[in-house]
Amino acid sequence: MHPLLEKEGFILDVDGVICRGRKPIMEGVEAVKKLKDLGKKIIFVSNNSTRSRRIFVERFNSFGLDVDENEILLATYATARFIARERRNAKVFTTGEAGLIEELELAGIKVVDYEDAEYLVVGSNRNISYEIMTKALRLCLNESIRYIATNPDRIFPGEDGPIPGTGMIIGALYWMTGRMPDVVIGKPSEVIMREALRILGLRAEDVVVVGDQIEIDVQAGRAIGAETLLVLSGVTTVDNLNEKIEKFGRPDYILNNLGELFG
Amino acid sequence: MHPLLEKEGFILDVDGVICRGRKPIMEGVEAVKKLKDLGKKIIFVSNNSTRSRRIFVERFNSFGLDVDENEILLATYATARFIARERRNAKVFTTGEAGLIEELELAGIKVVDYEDAEYLVVGSNRNISYEIMTKALRLCLNESIRYIATNPDRIFPGEDGPIPGTGMIIGALYWMTGRMPDVVIGKPSEVIMREALRILGLRAEDVVVVGDQIEIDVQAGRAIGAETLLVLSGVTTVDNLNEKIEKFGRPDYILNNLGELFG
Repeated sequence: MHPLLEKEGFILDVDGVICRGRKPIMEGVEAVKKLKDLGKKIIFVSNNSTRSRRIFVERFNSFGLDVDENEILLATYATARFIARERRNAKVFTTGEAGLIEELELAGIKVVDYEDAEYLVVGSNRNISYEIMTKALRLCLNESIRYIATNPDRIFPGEDGPIPGTGMIIGALYWMTGRMPDVVIGKPSEVIMREALRILGLRAEDVVVVGDQIEIDVQAGRAIGAETLLVLSGVTTVDNLNEKIEKFGRPDYILNNLGELFG
Repeated sequence: MHPLLEKEGFILDVDGVICRGRKPIMEGVEAVKKLKDLGKKIIFVSNNSTRSRRIFVERFNSFGLDVDENEILLATYATARFIARERRNAKVFTTGEAGLIEELELAGIKVVDYEDAEYLVVGSNRNISYEIMTKALRLCLNESIRYIATNPDRIFPGEDGPIPGTGMIIGALYWMTGRMPDVVIGKPSEVIMREALRILGLRAEDVVVVGDQIEIDVQAGRAIGAETLLVLSGVTTVDNLNEKIEKFGRPDYILNNLGELFG
């Protein structure tokens, strides 16, 4: 039996572990079913800052995976929880989309225009505009405004090529003002990982953090002191593995895919 | 007589020298009239990357200044001239607005969609969108594409507060790709200044470069080896002058406004 099967909890990346976009990775999907049959606690953690958890549930269902909303932690939801705990009824201006706004409001946060904001929340927006960027710029120049970013992702693999991630807005604001976010929620930040542990009700030593990128998923696992498993079913492959290990260090475990947990 | 009155040519910044937005600085306006009466060659150089020269002519006329389109060198026009000289009928994708597109097309450049582009031309756009940024990102990732920026300005003083300049797009692309423009046209780059000399038909030693910012105008003058005059009628004032000199060096001459050339 693989030693990681002794862990109580599995914190799983989505893309490159159980799917590539809308296509399931069957070894990953089957492994998750087996983990659930064994009574393991599971949470999927994604840096997605535009979609709601509901859409993830639907995608997982289409893979034949029975997953609950409480087993999904997106950067949107983690951001809302983080701010709500920091300041009840916080007033927030966000660059983000409906999915982020929905999660913020569900957490009791007031989404307001920039003149009334206490927080600037930067998340990706496929309808980003000069007006939104101007408002974000002015808040960023105001040091009394707390600046939170949903995730640091710079480029995202789109359906017909690379597309800008939340990092586009972070980079634009940094270039204009010299200011970086006070807190970044998404991986490799420990913030989203602590949120995952809190939801699982487990300690870092009871879980393994699984993903397809050392500098994101494994780094996030290390940030909370958890053991880490790299799978080669996504961005990292046998071809670039050594280069990645040299640059970002060695994960605790490496498997070709999540299914190999079961030999 | 002020020694600078022996120069044949005057390369003048606009904002902070002869106006502040739509309001004329009368000392500056009167001084330009006197310089013209003395038969001096004059060119206004501005990093503006969205407006056409016609709009500048109209504004100058409203100040009572008789100025010709050939006496105005905007970053839009300078960019078009630069590319046209580098490659006849170049195919360009631009993030910029109608004012930039107009100048590119007038110079014989083909403004195309990104799949057909040989050049990426980054200029400010008050209708910037995720789609435009995605196209710019993909071109930026392609090393065979030549990448030109109209100007490096990060923040611009808008009517009701700071607004993003062309630098917002440069910064976003840099953050996503690690790539900076191959050529920046606007001040403090020497590119727009060499264009100004070419239009005036003068050598650097025959002109003085005048502006209200050491790190932009004076730096641009130094880049071509011209003498420089800082006026304190704009961004630089008696209050921050010493700090600016410490940071960016001393201009050859300093006057409260351009009118002081005439005592």
